[in-house]
Amino acid sequence: WSALAQTKTIKPNEPCKHIVLYYHDILFNGTNVANATSAKAANATKLGDFNFGMLVVFDDPITEDHHLLSPPIARAQGFYFYDMKDTYNAWFAYTLLFNSSEHKGTLNIMGADMMGEETRDLSVVGGTGDFFMARGIATFRTDTFQALL
Amino acid sequence: WSALAQTKTIKPNEPCKHIVLYYHDILFNGTNVANATSAKAANATKLGDFNFGMLVVFDDPITEDHHLLSPPIARAQGFYFYDMKDTYNAWFAYTLLFNSSEHKGTLNIMGADMMGEETRDLSVVGGTGDFFMARGIATFRTDTFQALL
Amino acid sequence: WSALAQTKTIKPNEPCKHIVLYYHDILFNGTNVANATSAKAANATKLGDFNFGMLVVFDDPITEDHHLLSPPIARAQGFYFYDMKDTYNAWFAYTLLFNSSEHKGTLNIMGADMMGEETRDLSVVGGTGDFFMARGIATFRTDTFQALL
Repeated sequence: WSALAQTKTIKPNEPCKHIVLYYHDILFNGTNVANATSAKAANATKLGDFNFGMLVVFDDPITEDHHLLSPPIARAQGFYFYDMKDTYNAWFAYTLLFNSSEHKGTLNIMGADMMGEETRDLSVVGGTGDFFMARGIATFRTDTFQALL
Repeated sequence: WSALAQTKTIKPNEPCKHIVLYYHDILFNGTNVANATSAKAANATKLGDFNFGMLVVFDDPITEDHHLLSPPIARAQGFYFYDMKDTYNAWFAYTLLFNSSEHKGTLNIMGADMMGEETRDLSVVGGTGDFFMARGIATFRTDTFQALL
Repeated sequence: WSALAQTKTIKPNEPCKHIVLYYHDILFNGTNVANATSAKAANATKLGDFNFGMLVVFDDPITEDHHLLSPPIARAQGFYFYDMKDTYNAWFAYTLLFNSSEHKGTLNIMGADMMGEETRDLSVVGGTGDFFMARGIATFRTDTFQALL
């Protein structure tokens, strides 16, 4: 997927911060080492037809617009897996790593990605560096989606 | 397992909220697609005799009483794995998804499940929707337990 | 690895707490059941040469100094995986379990471990027992490192 994620982080005694980010994910297919940003660590089980149990580890570039080739302002490192037997649905835990002139530090995020909903809220559960003690919400919205596998 | 989990969430400037929930988990055995709510994504290793490293992805119905067939008021989506070589012990990360007239939103939970203890506390690390910015404790207590595998 | 982790937890309305801990990790190689503290739950993929996707479950003793045989004051239970194709880099989620006269309770931690940096900050996202509602930072610093596999 290539997803738009809208991150709202709220710090005590500070105004809310709001960042819009674009994720770019290309799954390793066995030959695309140069382009791939993620790979299957565990195969899907036979529970249903929607990849239940398939576990993907990723290291995705993050840009400020939806162009894959724009300069990345962060990386998203973590994993997701599919976890419904009657539709595509995923669960994520990952870190956003910022290392730009604007932001240095990380945001740690986890939660369910109910892929059938137009927007899905995950939790920002912590942060480091510029994002020390951050908490809040990361809202996923799918921008373009080229292929599941 | 079918476990009783007691969730205490504490919001800043609001009184504590306390919810009692029952989880129902049925592991996929290769043929019970209709009933199974979880499946092995990675097999146990040979480190000890207690399934060390076995990883299970789940999508479990949650009820307000301990009857499996009561109407679910939420789902628990996430994973656990076994991680001790000399006894059964597990580690969980998952999302409680509420979509009822009473509650809409999610709670994100992680922590160790020291299965030998009568009650075990995990952390509620975040929430969304009605549970925005929630934090607190999820206490596991095993209600009935029919078979490990 | 055998890593030094420095844990800073900050509780609302309380002074900061600061704990220095040493992790001792010995990966299961198929025969060292007695000594091993961790095992591969999923093998590395072929995306790059740095174990991308390799998933390790651990139950590591934690000591107050860097001697492996010092009495453990806690355990670290959780998992990590490698997630970069052009260098070693890992992502962790785990629980520190304290059960000593000094501390009883858990700290839950997640985040990226950018192994190339001298120190790396992960998030303390929650706690239980003596660490109820704890939040903060866990700083990793590699002390000694004997072999990756």
